[in-house]
Amino acid sequence: MAKRVGTDTVLCETLPQILSSAAIVGKKEGEGPLQEHFDLIHEDTTLCEKSWEKAESRLQSEALSRALDKAVLAPADVQVIFAGDLLNQCIGSAFGLRSSNIPFLGQYGACSTMAQTIAMASLFVEGGIARVAAAVTSSHFCSAERQFRFPLEYGGVRAPTSQWTVTGAGAAVVGHGGDESCPYVRAVTVGRIVDLGIKDANNMGAAMAPAACSTISAFLRDTGTQPQDYDLILTGDLGYTGSQLLIDLLKRENIDIHQNHADCGLLIFDREKQDVKAGGSGCGCAGSVFCSYVMHRLCKKELRNILFIATGALMSPTSSQQGESIPGIAHLLNICS
Amino acid sequence: MAKRVGTDTVLCETLPQILSSAAIVGKKEGEGPLQEHFDLIHEDTTLCEKSWEKAESRLQSEALSRALDKAVLAPADVQVIFAGDLLNQCIGSAFGLRSSNIPFLGQYGACSTMAQTIAMASLFVEGGIARVAAAVTSSHFCSAERQFRFPLEYGGVRAPTSQWTVTGAGAAVVGHGGDESCPYVRAVTVGRIVDLGIKDANNMGAAMAPAACSTISAFLRDTGTQPQDYDLILTGDLGYTGSQLLIDLLKRENIDIHQNHADCGLLIFDREKQDVKAGGSGCGCAGSVFCSYVMHRLCKKELRNILFIATGALMSPTSSQQGESIPGIAHLLNICS
Repeated sequence: MAKRVGTDTVLCETLPQILSSAAIVGKKEGEGPLQEHFDLIHEDTTLCEKSWEKAESRLQSEALSRALDKAVLAPADVQVIFAGDLLNQCIGSAFGLRSSNIPFLGQYGACSTMAQTIAMASLFVEGGIARVAAAVTSSHFCSAERQFRFPLEYGGVRAPTSQWTVTGAGAAVVGHGGDESCPYVRAVTVGRIVDLGIKDANNMGAAMAPAACSTISAFLRDTGTQPQDYDLILTGDLGYTGSQLLIDLLKRENIDIHQNHADCGLLIFDREKQDVKAGGSGCGCAGSVFCSYVMHRLCKKELRNILFIATGALMSPTSSQQGESIPGIAHLLNICS
Repeated sequence: MAKRVGTDTVLCETLPQILSSAAIVGKKEGEGPLQEHFDLIHEDTTLCEKSWEKAESRLQSEALSRALDKAVLAPADVQVIFAGDLLNQCIGSAFGLRSSNIPFLGQYGACSTMAQTIAMASLFVEGGIARVAAAVTSSHFCSAERQFRFPLEYGGVRAPTSQWTVTGAGAAVVGHGGDESCPYVRAVTVGRIVDLGIKDANNMGAAMAPAACSTISAFLRDTGTQPQDYDLILTGDLGYTGSQLLIDLLKRENIDIHQNHADCGLLIFDREKQDVKAGGSGCGCAGSVFCSYVMHRLCKKELRNILFIATGALMSPTSSQQGESIPGIAHLLNICS
């Protein structure tokens, strides 16, 4: 039975395990520093589908399928799946998982979705609501560009603070009874919406950093722990600008994470060589980095106690056109191995 | 601690209570048969906001605020809020609940969102993950029309099977320790995505009916109960066409619900007088009907044991334009009083 500590944090006393995970990415991501960690790299980012949206859906179904295979589970063994993505009405998830025939709960947390879905899966397992639960998310550079920004053919110049949407999907399976290599979820902090009034849709990192600051700060306060208690404090896709801002914002609260902070958006690409400006972004960024590289290091016990905080910008092109600022959110998982 | 029965159903053994609820609607809804049950009827459906989207967000914040007032709770008493809507990137919820400062988990279940969010809130309370959890959803005729169909000014003719998106929001607060008038959630069945290949976006009821059939059938099988065991089997927004289809589909499985079935989309409007074609739809349809009329009847013990099944169509204009069929989903709550 879950136990609440402080105001925002839930301790998972039964220690739900991440039984397996998988990450599928596109060509550009496969050319980056994490190449060896991905389960599959699609050289053709259409995945031979007729639209970018269908390609994104297939990323999700492939990631789920590989994760289930690794856990030696069939879809029928999974009692609930949590999934979401950035596309309007979350069609990446609905169409990607339609044929899985697993009870489905659609989630919307923008780029925080990987943390949100693993949190939901872990809490359902913790609460006895499901024996096995899965978490999936995706993004696709091309479907995101045309929906949020410009048609690809437009060839727009990118701002230095802008980020590159990752083409990729991550899937994780949560349950009990895995072997000792499987990491476990020790705590979850559900984030609050934080909006400091940033309106620049080319600077999502800055819009999301205050939410990450709020959630990390809440977790440390709730648990009475310090940044140095963790091997790694991994944010989702703040990128270069957002990461700097997060470190600064936390310093004002006397919390220093600069020594053990990393960001999935900075890990997945080589910013110098791959021209991605401030780094990677999208649900698939934290999704594919966590479900490959980070999980591998947890399973090998190279990491023993981490915080994974994925952040999301809860805006739409419509809200921006109507002059709204960008609300951010961040959900945190404390994962041990 | 939750207990699973059959393949898809979770029994809530601690009986989480719906401590309070509220429904806010627009002018047309306020002219319908449920007029006396709504907490507030906005004669001006702009709610004096500058855009339909901002108006929709305000429906959510007002509904939450009224529901909390009725339960004599402050936002700080709520440990998590589940919310979603139909707008791209769910901005109705993000902007509507931004200032509440309640830990937020965005949900996407299209028009099934009221059932999904109450289910999540109930399961979190059941699993000890939250003491008090809230559920909110909304839709707005004008924001939905321009996003999913045509600009209002276009004045398009509506098909007889088309439905009228409800302008309204519903909010519910779930926890323990309410007085005996508060109904309680006895079971939850999370739905699976069902897609029988229907492509007509003007006939959402037909696209969603197979999902309702699947979930109702799963629940009855899992619990070993019959339709006649329930005072009311209430679907979300199948409307006239979808309701007929649901009754027929269930008959093929030897399940007869015609005597105790009702649909929120048929309850909220007078189809003869209000020219809404097949009935109401939108997240706010099931949201506002359940959180007013149905809750009132449960609290008064006029209803003692009901099934509430809200259905969603997990499509987008993009998926329809790309020739995709419409996947449906339905989540079920067994609520007693």
